[in-house]
Amino acid sequence: VLLARVGTGLRSETVRRTNLSVIIRELHFGGPQSRSALVGRTELTRSAIRSLISELVSADLVAEVRAAPVGVPGRPSTMVCPNAEGAVVLALDITVDSLAAALIGLGGTILASARVDRPPTHLEPSEIVADLVSLAEPILREPAAAGRFIGIGVAVVGVVRRSDGLVSMAPNLGWREIPLGRLVAAAFDGDAPVAVANEADLGALAELRRGAAVGADDVLFVSGEVGVGGGVVVDGRPMIGAAGYGGEIGHMPVNPDGLPCRCGSIGCWETEVGEGALLRHAGRRPDGGREAVDAVLADAAAGLPRAVAALDEVGRWLGVGLAGLVNVFDPELIVLGGFFGRILPRVGELVDRELDRRALAAPRSLVCVVPAKLGVDAPMIGAGELAMEPLLADPARWLLPRRPRLELAGA
Amino acid sequence: VLLARVGTGLRSETVRRTNLSVIIRELHFGGPQSRSALVGRTELTRSAIRSLISELVSADLVAEVRAAPVGVPGRPSTMVCPNAEGAVVLALDITVDSLAAALIGLGGTILASARVDRPPTHLEPSEIVADLVSLAEPILREPAAAGRFIGIGVAVVGVVRRSDGLVSMAPNLGWREIPLGRLVAAAFDGDAPVAVANEADLGALAELRRGAAVGADDVLFVSGEVGVGGGVVVDGRPMIGAAGYGGEIGHMPVNPDGLPCRCGSIGCWETEVGEGALLRHAGRRPDGGREAVDAVLADAAAGLPRAVAALDEVGRWLGVGLAGLVNVFDPELIVLGGFFGRILPRVGELVDRELDRRALAAPRSLVCVVPAKLGVDAPMIGAGELAMEPLLADPARWLLPRRPRLELAGA
Repeated sequence: VLLARVGTGLRSETVRRTNLSVIIRELHFGGPQSRSALVGRTELTRSAIRSLISELVSADLVAEVRAAPVGVPGRPSTMVCPNAEGAVVLALDITVDSLAAALIGLGGTILASARVDRPPTHLEPSEIVADLVSLAEPILREPAAAGRFIGIGVAVVGVVRRSDGLVSMAPNLGWREIPLGRLVAAAFDGDAPVAVANEADLGALAELRRGAAVGADDVLFVSGEVGVGGGVVVDGRPMIGAAGYGGEIGHMPVNPDGLPCRCGSIGCWETEVGEGALLRHAGRRPDGGREAVDAVLADAAAGLPRAVAALDEVGRWLGVGLAGLVNVFDPELIVLGGFFGRILPRVGELVDRELDRRALAAPRSLVCVVPAKLGVDAPMIGAGELAMEPLLADPARWLLPRRPRLELAGA
Repeated sequence: VLLARVGTGLRSETVRRTNLSVIIRELHFGGPQSRSALVGRTELTRSAIRSLISELVSADLVAEVRAAPVGVPGRPSTMVCPNAEGAVVLALDITVDSLAAALIGLGGTILASARVDRPPTHLEPSEIVADLVSLAEPILREPAAAGRFIGIGVAVVGVVRRSDGLVSMAPNLGWREIPLGRLVAAAFDGDAPVAVANEADLGALAELRRGAAVGADDVLFVSGEVGVGGGVVVDGRPMIGAAGYGGEIGHMPVNPDGLPCRCGSIGCWETEVGEGALLRHAGRRPDGGREAVDAVLADAAAGLPRAVAALDEVGRWLGVGLAGLVNVFDPELIVLGGFFGRILPRVGELVDRELDRRALAAPRSLVCVVPAKLGVDAPMIGAGELAMEPLLADPARWLLPRRPRLELAGA
């Protein structure tokens, strides 16, 4: 890696903290494994592993479990396991048509969750936050919620400044300049750290860690909804941009004589491949929502020419935009989410044809296009990962007596 | 940073190597500085700094120089300096109309260099490599070339696979699937490591380390030549893509009914903003080259309407494409090189207008557009940085007796 920034040096305390982080990440992402596997994967010595694990065990973040191998004679081997209830986060998800909340433990275990539909109308941020509190209340009363509470992660269908969770624009919610991070922090325990990010970015993070892109380093996640969301992974790291606004690939200009976009520009990719475009081509109201999209997919499956033609048109434009993104990013994998994932079996050939025609031969020959794995819960799972990050980055900060469970403000 | 990959742990030998690397990078990028400054910037202890520097001094990579502060009473302070002749690289640059070679020392000092024009005709790779050898021969006979030789870096105007320096496509040279890394290695000392990369990527690296983007973490470098080159920096790291083909922003589709592109696609950004587009709009032959571009700029400066209109049209499309890239990358800085840098004073307002109209308000409000600083030598300087990277990444490997100077094969 050609670093331009100079990093800081390593002092002995940094080394211990870094090694604790390496081990907790390995267990959080990779799940239970033997000490020997950890030695192999972390390249630490056996004695260093032993002492670091004992620190994590005393802090209740990790458990050692004696597992009898099935049908194999000999001593049972000891597995090192992340303790799901040793560290928990609250994940929240605000989509166009639903709200979700989940309690997620170390290792990615979903300990409790709930999702409710909401009308796709514009609601005040305070109303949505109040609905999230109601949704989360029973979840936070679960016994598992008594674990060490790391923080709250929020996925939202909007353009988000990472530093403070300001939603600068969320056209589908009718929001502009909403301090969502601050509102959520106030509605829950004011002390809990709250991290907010765009739902496509978090969907990408979830697919990268636990879904279709596990093990890949350069990934493009493209999700088709009302808008087109994008999450980009560059060299193993989610790309967020200078202020967290990066990855808005739905707003690449692809058609200078195209339609006005909700963002105020003209001919953005989203105007050619979003839900509205599909419904328009199919002769339906562009704001028909997910049910109308499902109806078009059903019509196309039944062979109705207008629905088939609508899918073809969207598939062609999907290929055009992906070709540009292949040239820009040279990803090894493109993961299609939302309705793009659902139409991929039908439009895959058209997408491939446009990629062949329009992308540079070298990066084109390396890239695979696959559907997302985690479905509608991907952004919520990603919000959990975001909230768990402070623990993963520096577990030493948490090797202290447990904090009391999260209390609802005013409760 | 939300890492998806789990890193390896730190063992005591890794710590020493990492700290040596941190110090040598600090001196290579930041130049001479006091021990106290190094303590502050690396966060290492004073005693660790002392012992690491003495290792680097014995290996002749670093020198300690007693500098009397001008006009200040008191003891002269000791400055730690990178020793330019302690580690040297050969940087080569293959552009459409010139070839260049330079001997570059630690700290970025250009110890010797030469550039020759070449006719913009298609030449066999073997002829170009032979010309580079002739150009480099007197440079490698300089006394400074006796320094520890780290390797050869090559910038080339083409799409390059980083792993082995295969040029998959270089339309301006008429090359396809040329093993340039192997050809250069064979023509020079077969042992010297050769790293090849795209010239826009390397221009971006140079501007990031020594030019207009020093200190920035999220940067977009856009260079206008016959083609449009791009170099992207994400979170302080040059983005190269899965196989090194990333950053080909000239081949974003911006106009589906546009002109055929040299890459085989239609309506790539390059067809609207490259040299050919400017010359076409100005009523000149699109293959007129740099002289013709200069003539259009001169005509526009003199107020000739057709030249002014041509610049306006290119400026407008420049803004359209940059708006898309602002949405995709959320950079803090856009650095314009090649003729884009030269026309910026004239088209800056048009570019700003398109950014205001077409980019999302939040990332748009944060981004600055500036001209490149390093001019025509940027890719060559970047090639030097690329070749120096193995030393910067792990100086411990080089704390050995010096290797003999580079010999030309067969000499």
